[in-house]
Amino acid sequence: MRTVYVNGEYIAEDQAKVSIFDRGFLMGDGIYEVTSVLDGKLIDFEGHAIRLQRSMSELDMQSPIEMDDLLEVHRELVRLNGVDEGMIYLQITRGAPDDRDFVYPDPETTKPTIVLFTQNKPGLADSPMSKTGMKVISIADQRWARRDIKTVQLLYPSMAKMAAKAAGKDDAWMVEDGAVTEGSSNNAYIVKGNTIITRHLGNEILHGITRAAVLRFAREAQMNVEERSFTIEEAQKADEAFITSASTFVMPVVEIDDAPIGAGTPGPVVARLREIYLEEMRKAAI
Amino acid sequence: MRTVYVNGEYIAEDQAKVSIFDRGFLMGDGIYEVTSVLDGKLIDFEGHAIRLQRSMSELDMQSPIEMDDLLEVHRELVRLNGVDEGMIYLQITRGAPDDRDFVYPDPETTKPTIVLFTQNKPGLADSPMSKTGMKVISIADQRWARRDIKTVQLLYPSMAKMAAKAAGKDDAWMVEDGAVTEGSSNNAYIVKGNTIITRHLGNEILHGITRAAVLRFAREAQMNVEERSFTIEEAQKADEAFITSASTFVMPVVEIDDAPIGAGTPGPVVARLREIYLEEMRKAAI
Repeated sequence: MRTVYVNGEYIAEDQAKVSIFDRGFLMGDGIYEVTSVLDGKLIDFEGHAIRLQRSMSELDMQSPIEMDDLLEVHRELVRLNGVDEGMIYLQITRGAPDDRDFVYPDPETTKPTIVLFTQNKPGLADSPMSKTGMKVISIADQRWARRDIKTVQLLYPSMAKMAAKAAGKDDAWMVEDGAVTEGSSNNAYIVKGNTIITRHLGNEILHGITRAAVLRFAREAQMNVEERSFTIEEAQKADEAFITSASTFVMPVVEIDDAPIGAGTPGPVVARLREIYLEEMRKAAI
Repeated sequence: MRTVYVNGEYIAEDQAKVSIFDRGFLMGDGIYEVTSVLDGKLIDFEGHAIRLQRSMSELDMQSPIEMDDLLEVHRELVRLNGVDEGMIYLQITRGAPDDRDFVYPDPETTKPTIVLFTQNKPGLADSPMSKTGMKVISIADQRWARRDIKTVQLLYPSMAKMAAKAAGKDDAWMVEDGAVTEGSSNNAYIVKGNTIITRHLGNEILHGITRAAVLRFAREAQMNVEERSFTIEEAQKADEAFITSASTFVMPVVEIDDAPIGAGTPGPVVARLREIYLEEMRKAAI
């Protein structure tokens, strides 16, 4: 039985509830972050905290907590639940007004809702998939236009994941106007020679915290980084492909729409990036 | 204090809660309907029940309730809360699995969540705005691509409503590829002579229950109906404009982006359609 955090209290997960009038439940009016835990420590907490604040700012949402206190809640949940490897999920919504209305409630009387819970994932860093690689399908990107805000409006990514599963694959890369935007819950990359190619930032994709770190490490390792659009066809002809996310770190992609990438097995550039990422992030974990 | 309905129980609204693991809360994985009440009776319940089933079907979601029982829950809530004029809000989500995952939970073990509550709105049918008309702004339509499914992913419509409010207006008409899709939570129409023009059905707009009824009544009243795209410019030059929704019925629009429509006051065609709609729907209410 996990202990979770809801609006200032540490409680048993089966007691953790929110009002049916919560705007997270009624209107998808909420944002979230997922921070990984390795060796019982938080990976890139600051990056997630900064993006969280940006998401709230973009939506004119008040923060229910100071960032220092948020760090303490993360740490306390890790301690209470004995998490060595896993994730901490954090969600903030615009709160539960007295009634449903499209107009935002007065922030003076309706306080944001804050929820955190842990997910224990022993072996997260040593995932079997990092050795075998993932297979992905392509799918039309039908999400809303502000994917740079990390909202809980995740029905389409969930549908994309189900489409991948139905096809016997692991995930879906979303395509808009002929170009790959990102994976269902991760950023997408291809490798050509010594060059890493990934979509440029904009409203069309999430500004991945892991993405920023991996691109920094790639540049430090003397790789070229091109931030630009690419097509499924270009990806299928690449030497390697991969995704990044807070919980998968750097994960090889070995097949796109039934076409093997390179030799159809994880390649050396992705393996090296994963190794550097895990090594550096473990060092910096808090 | 309202009595609301949550998963089979009638309970006080301040006790009405759902798990933090509910996919409605975590992922916007839920659908809804709003049915109006006039004279203590339900307006077009069948239309809403049919659309509800379609939304669930499109999302591979199981229904937690038979439609006959759903009607009884609606009626019981009207009775318990003494609603003469108002609305009944209904939401169904894919339920609360043991943990968060993009993959849908097994429907055998995770049952859908169902929530209903009433909103008492005395004077709903005699709304002052039906005499003065609404003022709207235009705004880019940034919603996801499946607006024909009535999901709770309502953050953008909520943002659009706030943008209208910030501009001192009543609502926003959303524009995509140069054409009006619909209002923030209603279908949009213009009137030229004896012709009613409203966007054709498709994935781009909600298939309004009120829309279907109003178009039927318009045809019966010997008006022409054109279901096609129109621009903001065409709308600004129209004789009249209006919206329809379950809770506003037929509501005149007298200004679009600061341009008065016709005389800048509600016109006769819209007034007539509202009258017919209310009269016919009161007759058919159950």
